[in-house]
Amino acid sequence: MSGVLCGIGLGPGDPELLTLKAARLLGQARVVAYPAPPGRDSFAREIAAPHLAPGAEEIRLDIPMTPERAPAQAAYDAGASRIRARLAAGEEVLFLCEGDPLFYGSFMYLSARLMPEFPVRVVPGITALTACAAAARQPLAARESVLSAIPATLDSPALARAIEGAGAAAIFKLGRHLGRVRDVLRSKGLADHAVYVEHASLPRERVLPLADAPEPAPYFSMILVAKEVESWLS
Amino acid sequence: MSGVLCGIGLGPGDPELLTLKAARLLGQARVVAYPAPPGRDSFAREIAAPHLAPGAEEIRLDIPMTPERAPAQAAYDAGASRIRARLAAGEEVLFLCEGDPLFYGSFMYLSARLMPEFPVRVVPGITALTACAAAARQPLAARESVLSAIPATLDSPALARAIEGAGAAAIFKLGRHLGRVRDVLRSKGLADHAVYVEHASLPRERVLPLADAPEPAPYFSMILVAKEVESWLS
Repeated sequence: MSGVLCGIGLGPGDPELLTLKAARLLGQARVVAYPAPPGRDSFAREIAAPHLAPGAEEIRLDIPMTPERAPAQAAYDAGASRIRARLAAGEEVLFLCEGDPLFYGSFMYLSARLMPEFPVRVVPGITALTACAAAARQPLAARESVLSAIPATLDSPALARAIEGAGAAAIFKLGRHLGRVRDVLRSKGLADHAVYVEHASLPRERVLPLADAPEPAPYFSMILVAKEVESWLS
Repeated sequence: MSGVLCGIGLGPGDPELLTLKAARLLGQARVVAYPAPPGRDSFAREIAAPHLAPGAEEIRLDIPMTPERAPAQAAYDAGASRIRARLAAGEEVLFLCEGDPLFYGSFMYLSARLMPEFPVRVVPGITALTACAAAARQPLAARESVLSAIPATLDSPALARAIEGAGAAAIFKLGRHLGRVRDVLRSKGLADHAVYVEHASLPRERVLPLADAPEPAPYFSMILVAKEVESWLS
């Protein structure tokens, strides 16, 4: 009997924003795996830590954060091999994911490698999207509006097109792109419909008008744009 | 001291997909409010039920599901008045929400009415979006892809534009629009990139190829389209 690979969403950081299911599975887990930036702590492991059973085996995958894909691909290959060995031995392996495993998460790189051989399960988690909206107390979308999640790493014309095509937008991966995103929103007359949120759900959470957003923005930040909010309420 | 209005996300239906925070707040709540279709049970209340403290006061808002907005608006006005009275008396009121309060939820109609007078808090919940992806074990989006949540109630040209502009799409509010959505996806050559999910996270959950999706689709259903999935993994 081979084991099951389970991708488990841990939410945006607040230890109370785990699901009951995630907390239960973490407490029962014999083997957990998680990604980490080389030489730094894993945020996913940090969120999970209070719930982990003592003595659980830990498989840490150091994933290089480089613009080229090859180093990360090699790291996922190596990580998948280590996880494969535990699955083949009949162990269930929980893969810890910030937010949700399938919403811009790294779990897909492991499941793509292991799904042909082993059963896979996914436990959804609270995304940064809803955590940021909760922090700003602002509706993400309603009624017939299209809501688009848009990576700020797109070039400016693509950003402008994506924002234009949606009734509401959540723009993330801001970092050094924040100023460019702000310029696009201003050029579309949308700066007053936008709010900036960083570190949603954590003690250092901040909600700011777009004009006051820091440059560069931290990794855990988002701009929410609600273009059609008046029509939702009318 | 006036009370706080708290919109609380309860997730897609699986009672274990509540957050620890939601479970704690439900157990402490003295007053809860929730929307319900006239004459039928409230799904939000059903999810919350196992966690509610005995003796909690319940404010049920019957919200007519009509194409015209006026009857629902009147119902929200009346509901806001009843909640206002409890907030003014210093009570915290938890408003129970399926999924997430701010992701196409009805909480916004209450917070818009009450936020000018009372403090408002929001606890995010697991959305149908991530619950459906988990059921299908399919990535929603990754890398530089735009992910759009698209109401199937849009007319076909608007649907086609929204799908075209995104790298991945989640199409919901399917109901009697399912056939039309399928036609749009076929005309774009995307039917093979689409999967249909209904009642995600519940015992009656089903994941089907688009060709086998029922018409009309149930209210709790979604089509996921991952156009760029090959590029995410390459």
